[in-house]
Amino acid sequence: MEIKVMKKILEASEKKAEEIREDLRKRGVLFLNLMSSPGSGKTTLIERTVRELPHLKFAVIEGDIQTTLDARRMANLGVQTYQINTGPFGGDCHLEAPWIATALSEMNLEGVDILFVENIGNLVCPAEFDIGAHFNVVVLSVTEGEDKPLKYPLAFRVSQLALVSKTDLLPYLDVSLERIVQNIKAVNPAMEIFPLSAKTGDGFDPWLEFLQERRKSLSSSL
Amino acid sequence: MEIKVMKKILEASEKKAEEIREDLRKRGVLFLNLMSSPGSGKTTLIERTVRELPHLKFAVIEGDIQTTLDARRMANLGVQTYQINTGPFGGDCHLEAPWIATALSEMNLEGVDILFVENIGNLVCPAEFDIGAHFNVVVLSVTEGEDKPLKYPLAFRVSQLALVSKTDLLPYLDVSLERIVQNIKAVNPAMEIFPLSAKTGDGFDPWLEFLQERRKSLSSSL
Repeated sequence: MEIKVMKKILEASEKKAEEIREDLRKRGVLFLNLMSSPGSGKTTLIERTVRELPHLKFAVIEGDIQTTLDARRMANLGVQTYQINTGPFGGDCHLEAPWIATALSEMNLEGVDILFVENIGNLVCPAEFDIGAHFNVVVLSVTEGEDKPLKYPLAFRVSQLALVSKTDLLPYLDVSLERIVQNIKAVNPAMEIFPLSAKTGDGFDPWLEFLQERRKSLSSSL
Repeated sequence: MEIKVMKKILEASEKKAEEIREDLRKRGVLFLNLMSSPGSGKTTLIERTVRELPHLKFAVIEGDIQTTLDARRMANLGVQTYQINTGPFGGDCHLEAPWIATALSEMNLEGVDILFVENIGNLVCPAEFDIGAHFNVVVLSVTEGEDKPLKYPLAFRVSQLALVSKTDLLPYLDVSLERIVQNIKAVNPAMEIFPLSAKTGDGFDPWLEFLQERRKSLSSSL
């Protein structure tokens, strides 16, 4: 009985995810779901991305258990931002498609090229929920060490793109970028991997090209 | 009906946590539950702690979704280690008291002074579950930024001690240790906070003293 209810909820959530994906495709809005541990640099990454692509219009949904710190950073950039707070006491550790649908219904997507969802900082739970993104992007800071793809494989299995962030810190760490890449490939051989630093801008070009190309091919499939 | 079942499970789990805490106190085993984001350096921290206190006997329970990478690092140190893997596909994002009880029943605690549980790398879910520790310890790497205590407050509220790790990287980050400490105090004014580096050993003395004193006062309360 209980399992039946659970299944219905999951099915409804998956159906909603498909609807979001298709609706945004039709509208020409490229939707990327950014997942990572806390403090991998997702917000800084989005900030630099927005600044580097001034000809594109961005919107952001910020997922946090609480606070609007990241949303305020986005608003300072002049980016339309919607905050989802999952609750003051522990709260939910992930976002779900129905909440994204509600957020989208309250946002103005007119002319928006790229939508980022900054998922809750958590390398486990968000990976279990399809929120309707065209691309799942896992962000892994080099400071987190080499073994994380092996220890938290689901986030890497369900993502199409991995951004290995904070590469400017590599000289000060006992960490090999090559081994991080190897471990990602071991879990997901098809993964596109861009090592980069949102602080220095190093390695940013392939990521910016990826965004522009995928945005373009989304439009051409209308 | 469902809520009733949930409550029973939670109550059973909390009762088990109290039993573990009291049982280990009687046996003179100081139990610390280490919680953090992935890659905060929990394993390296335990490694250095074990090496720095050769007159104490340690045991470790490693919580991971999958892999035995950390358990092997502990075994290499000659430390009795028990691995809990919560599942191959996403798995559970936290440990619970009944699993700790099972682990303890299968371990040899004869002469053990300090038990570390290295909880699953996740700053959200583990904080919701009392696993019977005498001290909850939240580990926060300086690379995660200043705002994490505000964004993930529960882990900081339920902990008595915060270890601010990887301080050797501070010169290369736009992060103020003072503001990290302020933000921790804002969430939990009673928190003891030790900034340290498991790589250089900097700031390790207060942590080692804390362990030895608390181990001693546990024995004297027998």
